[in-house]
Amino acid sequence: MIPLDRFAAIVGERHVLADPEITNGYAVDWTGRFRGQTPAAVRPGTTEEVAAVVQLCNDQNIAVVPQGGNTGLVGGSVPLNGEIVLSLRRLDRIGEVDRLSAQVTAGAGLPLAVVQQHADAGGLAFGIDLAARDTATVGGMVATNAGGTRVLRYGPMRAQVAGIEAVLADGRIVSHMAGLAKDNTGYDLAGLLTGSEGTLAVVTAVRLRLVPRFENRVVALLGLDGTAAALEVVADLRRRLSSLEAAELFFADGLELVGLPSPLPNRFGTYLLVECAAATDPTDELAAALSGIDDGAVAVATAPPQRAALWQLRERHTETINAIGVPHKLDVTLPPSTMAEFVDRVRAATAAIDPTSHCYLFGHIGDGNLHVNVVGDHDHEPPDAVDDAVLQLVADLGGSISAEHGIGRAKRPWLHLNRSETELDVFRRVKHAFDPNGILNPSVLVPP
Amino acid sequence: MIPLDRFAAIVGERHVLADPEITNGYAVDWTGRFRGQTPAAVRPGTTEEVAAVVQLCNDQNIAVVPQGGNTGLVGGSVPLNGEIVLSLRRLDRIGEVDRLSAQVTAGAGLPLAVVQQHADAGGLAFGIDLAARDTATVGGMVATNAGGTRVLRYGPMRAQVAGIEAVLADGRIVSHMAGLAKDNTGYDLAGLLTGSEGTLAVVTAVRLRLVPRFENRVVALLGLDGTAAALEVVADLRRRLSSLEAAELFFADGLELVGLPSPLPNRFGTYLLVECAAATDPTDELAAALSGIDDGAVAVATAPPQRAALWQLRERHTETINAIGVPHKLDVTLPPSTMAEFVDRVRAATAAIDPTSHCYLFGHIGDGNLHVNVVGDHDHEPPDAVDDAVLQLVADLGGSISAEHGIGRAKRPWLHLNRSETELDVFRRVKHAFDPNGILNPSVLVPP
Repeated sequence: MIPLDRFAAIVGERHVLADPEITNGYAVDWTGRFRGQTPAAVRPGTTEEVAAVVQLCNDQNIAVVPQGGNTGLVGGSVPLNGEIVLSLRRLDRIGEVDRLSAQVTAGAGLPLAVVQQHADAGGLAFGIDLAARDTATVGGMVATNAGGTRVLRYGPMRAQVAGIEAVLADGRIVSHMAGLAKDNTGYDLAGLLTGSEGTLAVVTAVRLRLVPRFENRVVALLGLDGTAAALEVVADLRRRLSSLEAAELFFADGLELVGLPSPLPNRFGTYLLVECAAATDPTDELAAALSGIDDGAVAVATAPPQRAALWQLRERHTETINAIGVPHKLDVTLPPSTMAEFVDRVRAATAAIDPTSHCYLFGHIGDGNLHVNVVGDHDHEPPDAVDDAVLQLVADLGGSISAEHGIGRAKRPWLHLNRSETELDVFRRVKHAFDPNGILNPSVLVPP
Repeated sequence: MIPLDRFAAIVGERHVLADPEITNGYAVDWTGRFRGQTPAAVRPGTTEEVAAVVQLCNDQNIAVVPQGGNTGLVGGSVPLNGEIVLSLRRLDRIGEVDRLSAQVTAGAGLPLAVVQQHADAGGLAFGIDLAARDTATVGGMVATNAGGTRVLRYGPMRAQVAGIEAVLADGRIVSHMAGLAKDNTGYDLAGLLTGSEGTLAVVTAVRLRLVPRFENRVVALLGLDGTAAALEVVADLRRRLSSLEAAELFFADGLELVGLPSPLPNRFGTYLLVECAAATDPTDELAAALSGIDDGAVAVATAPPQRAALWQLRERHTETINAIGVPHKLDVTLPPSTMAEFVDRVRAATAAIDPTSHCYLFGHIGDGNLHVNVVGDHDHEPPDAVDDAVLQLVADLGGSISAEHGIGRAKRPWLHLNRSETELDVFRRVKHAFDPNGILNPSVLVPP
């Protein structure tokens, strides 16, 4: 029996939502693919309230799904087995930007866009950007170790977390928020909790690193002959340009589907989009680094509208593909040594399952991160056959079955492709050490 | 009873050292402050041999101290309670530099200098440098999350570890070495093992990130009026210069002791040394960033001998201070918000304990990392009184009692200053999850 009155005594009656018409919104993810149900969504307003709610759940063996903006793509933040939802969105306090340390303290419930705006107002920037910025919260981004387009330069969310405050499964609070660059005083709890998908503790606040706010940007589109050539260019630019901030890949088929005109005179099979940003204009250093490439294969943009126009060629892929059918979407990483082989073989592998399907590929080549989108008549396939084939190929080629999105519920059946039985056993022991009763997000990440 | 014959059956007779004349060298750290004794130093040559030795120790409840170059400063790698020493130095294989991923696979026993030379030969560089480079090993640097002068730009050792192979306490091997920039497939074992001081597993190999090898460097020495001014300059340079690689602090008293002439016309109380490195000459951008500072307070060097001469002013501090007496050495981090206050108060605090003592301060200001060296007639002090006073002040001001060196045995009595009882309990649970019999480096890091 769920003690709604006791939750209400902790967080206030209006923050315990039990009406199914309201809780339904907390029980489905934004793709609509993962739908559960919950007896209650509880919305604490402080770390201490989180602690009291979690302690009560632990005492009564009530399973809890922590939830932020609920923009995840792997079913990691919805109550698929009738768990209560612990919504962290009210933890939305943000501290002053500390100019000297280039850091800020942020509550788990803050949307990414608010952190970005706050950093900007303080003369700095935040190192992560992604499409769900208005809804995705800091806590959810920590739980999933969020990525995006700037990982190449600044690393993933884990690299932004300089300190962490969290509530343990038994309701105790741990807090290590000084944000010191050098601090060897025990195990790296901040790094361990980042990416743990709400299974080890409930993150309530973090000390975030900020990065310089660069006013000068330049974007270039390059036409190339294949993935291997694109990887060579990216490796070369990384060696030459400290200002390199993004390196994105797409192909002729995707560009054709997007339907925007290419600024390059010729048609190419492979396109590479790069962006540099610095305190002083990086255009000359980018131009020098690209001087070996034929003029007809490079378009450079410095003015904001022209830069945005180049980015549109890459960014419109997602919506354009969604418009022609519900695709299989797989978010994977390949090492550079096998990425070109993957690009060739994945198309053949998916076509073998459904000859009417088309496999669109694009992604963050600087991180080895490809988004695989297979559009076709899925009624003709055995369930999961496409996912199976793609993920097996990724694993065979030394890649990761989950680049940015995490494992959640969706990818748990395939985790064994990347992790040995020994590693999974270590994961279970760590989980048990943090959450002996198994109340925190029990259905995700670690297979039973 | 230590089964020397069974160790010999695994690693070969000549790699089981039991003669005290030889094992003594494995039982004392290089400062001579920590001396123990061991029944045997066992030197496995492969990961599989490490696994077999550790499994045997686990089965027979034999405590093990993993040891690399034994250059640690906190007594973390010597057998203080009669443990066997597991020397990893024979694990010295290194893979080809992978230009496309900018990574290399390195065995735990490789000295840092070998990794640096190997990266250089492959057209890249390694992001960590420190004085013990010829002896300190990769495995030891992982175990202690080593730092050094380039953390400002590249982060500590944890940021260089893209993949890890390790032997668990029960002898099983975990390996996740693909080195993918985006890889959200479970808990961050690499990050957790980094900095765990040999207490959770034995690191046998790592996949290391490499960084560009920059040919163009510029060094500047700035004379300033106090720590607060130095912090402002560093924060400003970080916002402007992607090429900033080091920011080091020292003071007039230290410079006078070092005895080298300052290139600045006037005497200053506080000195800041900065270095920039880039693929193209960073001199102009550094000069532009320093244009607000009076000419008489800046010396810039671009040629290697002049750059080295400026670095000598900072680097000679350690040996010069050691030459006038055995100092209390404390390696701490302060947040920028309290560093200036610390600099003022720590001198008063140590003088109050021993009025004849002198407190020299210098360090990596870009990371908040100060080295506190107190020279005086220690016979006049109660044992640990100086350490107590300094570390208590650090903790009071929100700093870390161990910046680079770790906790080991030396700082364990003070760990409670930085970590709550709840955090220490979490550490113990994690330790137990990895090493239920407590055989791995049982006397360090986590207080019993």
